[in-house]
Amino acid sequence: MARVFNFCAGPAALPTEVLQQAQAELVDWRGKGLSIMEMSHRSDEFVAVAEEAEKDFRDLLSISDDYAVLFLQGGATGQFSAVPLNLLGNAASADYINTGIWSKKAIAEAKRYTSVNVAASTESENFMRVPTQAELRLTGDAAYVHYTPNETIGGLEFQWIPEVGDKPLVADMSSSILSRPLDVSRFGVIYAGAQKNIGPAGICIAIVRKDLLDRERPETPVSMSYKVAASNGSMYNTPPTYAWYLSGLVFKWLKAQGGLEAMGEVNKRKAAQLYAAIDGSDFYNNPIALDSRSLMNIPFTLADDRLNDRFLAEAEEAGLLNLQGHRSVGGMRASIYNAVPESAVKALTSFMAEFEKRHA
Amino acid sequence: MARVFNFCAGPAALPTEVLQQAQAELVDWRGKGLSIMEMSHRSDEFVAVAEEAEKDFRDLLSISDDYAVLFLQGGATGQFSAVPLNLLGNAASADYINTGIWSKKAIAEAKRYTSVNVAASTESENFMRVPTQAELRLTGDAAYVHYTPNETIGGLEFQWIPEVGDKPLVADMSSSILSRPLDVSRFGVIYAGAQKNIGPAGICIAIVRKDLLDRERPETPVSMSYKVAASNGSMYNTPPTYAWYLSGLVFKWLKAQGGLEAMGEVNKRKAAQLYAAIDGSDFYNNPIALDSRSLMNIPFTLADDRLNDRFLAEAEEAGLLNLQGHRSVGGMRASIYNAVPESAVKALTSFMAEFEKRHA
Repeated sequence: MARVFNFCAGPAALPTEVLQQAQAELVDWRGKGLSIMEMSHRSDEFVAVAEEAEKDFRDLLSISDDYAVLFLQGGATGQFSAVPLNLLGNAASADYINTGIWSKKAIAEAKRYTSVNVAASTESENFMRVPTQAELRLTGDAAYVHYTPNETIGGLEFQWIPEVGDKPLVADMSSSILSRPLDVSRFGVIYAGAQKNIGPAGICIAIVRKDLLDRERPETPVSMSYKVAASNGSMYNTPPTYAWYLSGLVFKWLKAQGGLEAMGEVNKRKAAQLYAAIDGSDFYNNPIALDSRSLMNIPFTLADDRLNDRFLAEAEEAGLLNLQGHRSVGGMRASIYNAVPESAVKALTSFMAEFEKRHA
Repeated sequence: MARVFNFCAGPAALPTEVLQQAQAELVDWRGKGLSIMEMSHRSDEFVAVAEEAEKDFRDLLSISDDYAVLFLQGGATGQFSAVPLNLLGNAASADYINTGIWSKKAIAEAKRYTSVNVAASTESENFMRVPTQAELRLTGDAAYVHYTPNETIGGLEFQWIPEVGDKPLVADMSSSILSRPLDVSRFGVIYAGAQKNIGPAGICIAIVRKDLLDRERPETPVSMSYKVAASNGSMYNTPPTYAWYLSGLVFKWLKAQGGLEAMGEVNKRKAAQLYAAIDGSDFYNNPIALDSRSLMNIPFTLADDRLNDRFLAEAEEAGLLNLQGHRSVGGMRASIYNAVPESAVKALTSFMAEFEKRHA
């Protein structure tokens, strides 16, 4: 079968070219007679792969030497613990902005280690928008300020970076990293589970400002320690080598696409096209405030919920997969990460128009 | 190039047939039009893959329903923290047996959470043997007894299971699991990083007796919690799906080989052949006591250390890769896990004999 268009929220679509290269060299990596996943993480070959991936990632985001780039085991959920464990030091509290399900999970985990001040929340408005800068109530003794720039399930996104004074700003960028240019220097820590815009599930990248590497709490598991990872090139213990290698292939692909400026333009066009299709119809609806809409995850509902199953079945027949909304919210959701091409969005909007014609 | 013989200690060789199947379906998994690594972990397809992998793993080791089988992020180093965090409860100490580098790492990490009683150690004998049952000094108030059945670097292995009364016995089986039949019912917890006998780096299996799931310490990171993993089918958060899938292919391959009885016979023959080649020569030496020798990791030295580089270079020319000993001990090491065929050991012993003839 031909490759389908895959709108999965994560683990998500990867570029076909990346998968094809991985496939070609899976059994025999570059003539060495073994797979890259069968090599020691300390072999010259794998170390070169790992270093090149870090370099390409740094290039893409223009990350300065003030920051360590860590390739860690696990995903964002692990970081929900790692952030307080690594950053609290002697502080007794942290500020968190609450914009939806993933913020709430980060908050719940942080509360197990510290007192959490919710600096702003739009929960009373059902998370239909992100808060404004003026709404933030930051506290003086907080160790850091945490937020979720893009809520994968709710489909809302900050179009701006919070101003938090001299506190380290910490961001869960799992679903927005690499989708457009980013001023990393505004952040203390950025972390991102790979399975949306980086690579396969099972690896997580953390970008950590180096002056924050001395705040670790004594109970931090060694495998979660930013300091240990930073001082060992992310190889204190065996890293997830195949996921690291695949992430490196994705970074090369992004560079070949023209980097994050070019990617950002494509992503803006994709989102604009899909929102236009939704907003131009009474049959489809997206409830998020215009200034808070996600470029990556676009939930929408049908005028008649009873048509949901038919929509999904017919979409699948048309080669449009994984459009079901998250089980906690229902409806539909199209995740249009970097690896989802413009042709996929075009096919989706055409299908939506036809489906509406037949069923409205 | 043809596939080489790969004696890497980890990430280690995988069965060629497994890699070939993974390669064939990497871009388009079983006609679905997308890669298994691009599917939601909650999709029907992936859940079926995950459940089948667990079932095959349980079949191979005859694991009863008294045990949860958890597919976790990370490797054994993560478990060095997870074990005390999940098992200490209100206990103030744990017993650890010290047989080498990996035991010591587990002990060092446990000491960050509890008082550690070293129940036995052969460090004063340079870890040339494992202790005897009579040498174990277990303490009454210990929460559990931890040991490392096979020391990957030292090359020594318990040929027996310690008797620890009613304490849970905890074992780091990273480098010996699935190498032969095992009586799981003797253990409280077994854990194993995948990258030796299970699959690629980045996934770790824990077999946990269910009555031990209520002893978690409050500071346990949610991603490390056995209880949370057990009550969510190892999918509280996104698991490393591709590594899980590959592990499942390895389990199918093991079943096709005849299961662990058959595998154990092959592994015994492989080890016997290599030890015979070493012991039958004055040129090669393995220092480990006969009753403590590893079936999986066989270190050996050359009579003249100055020949080491030449040995490695000529071995590589002969298609025998990754024979260098661990950087902490030097010399040579052949890791002969399940995926290293008997023909590899035959080729190695032939090469060793020839090399000796030329250089002795």
